[in-house]
Amino acid sequence: MSGEKAPETRDRLIAATTELFRRHGFNGTSISAVSKAAEAPTGSLYHFFPGGKEELTEAALVTMGAVYRELFEMFAATAETPSQAIVNLFDGAADVLVESDFIDPCPIGTIAREVASTHEPLRLAARTVFESWNQAASEMFCDAGLPADEAAALATTVIAAIEGGFVLTRTSRDAEIIRTIGRQMAQLVEITFAADRGGTRF
Amino acid sequence: MSGEKAPETRDRLIAATTELFRRHGFNGTSISAVSKAAEAPTGSLYHFFPGGKEELTEAALVTMGAVYRELFEMFAATAETPSQAIVNLFDGAADVLVESDFIDPCPIGTIAREVASTHEPLRLAARTVFESWNQAASEMFCDAGLPADEAAALATTVIAAIEGGFVLTRTSRDAEIIRTIGRQMAQLVEITFAADRGGTRF
Repeated sequence: MSGEKAPETRDRLIAATTELFRRHGFNGTSISAVSKAAEAPTGSLYHFFPGGKEELTEAALVTMGAVYRELFEMFAATAETPSQAIVNLFDGAADVLVESDFIDPCPIGTIAREVASTHEPLRLAARTVFESWNQAASEMFCDAGLPADEAAALATTVIAAIEGGFVLTRTSRDAEIIRTIGRQMAQLVEITFAADRGGTRF
Repeated sequence: MSGEKAPETRDRLIAATTELFRRHGFNGTSISAVSKAAEAPTGSLYHFFPGGKEELTEAALVTMGAVYRELFEMFAATAETPSQAIVNLFDGAADVLVESDFIDPCPIGTIAREVASTHEPLRLAARTVFESWNQAASEMFCDAGLPADEAAALATTVIAAIEGGFVLTRTSRDAEIIRTIGRQMAQLVEITFAADRGGTRF
């Protein structure tokens, strides 16, 4: 602990975990690697996270989940329309992927798939994150006039598309892929609103 | 080797690897676990796959990729319209998820995210699989009359949506999620074809 303020060490452990997850995922990240990257002894890690890797991962999921929800709300608040917010979100993800040399912008999706059948508390933590994002996206669509059930379905699809977009873009190292998916999602958003306003539902 | 036919042991090793990947992903699966599950000694594993885990994983990706492409082509061939093929594909995935207690129907997406920044040969193998799927889906859309560029964009989005659908559905253990995403994708397919036939593009 070496005289440091406790929150600093705890935050540094979570940040180091998150960064390792971006390249190596959950099962590829060891407690000793986190300890080394955070420059915190293993004893310090277990002091803050007595549950070890699982508790640390849960804290990282909660922290990342809140950061990405705020980021989404920023996109929603600054765009003129929901479809423009979606384009900005996917284009923003494309920029981050290029700038970061295609490391994982959102390790939550990777971790979720790694742990879903093996670590029940982490599955539940990831579920809470995705539900929170769904709520944020649903609110944006509802505020723009869509009924709650259609808003929730659209939110689910947008979140799935960006998660799948991370898979395809990181695998291809081609950011145009996630930009294309963003434009298609914007089109889906527009047709949903148009149909709701009484246009033809195809 | 114990007198067995070589192809049988090799296939059994790939099948065991695939099954372990469904629950544990790439980094959560060890050579010794594969050897045990396949009832093949480690020496036999290295006989067939001198490159060890990486070579075995590449073989599993190629095998799974071909199986899922054939499955997709079956959905495409038996549905009356591309949008119906998409609904059937996502509903089929939902059924598999429920029947398998939500283990990963497609570990390729999980592995792709785990290895994209760390195992270049596996990233390239996964990219080849996704490109093959994109080609199969594009062909279905082209055969139904869509121009090649629109067909490819739609194919990309459908693949992203099903990959993201696996994330959300396994995390929530709620198969309605992937069914909902399938219906939204079918709607996107329909509006794309309608716009191409001269309808309003929203």
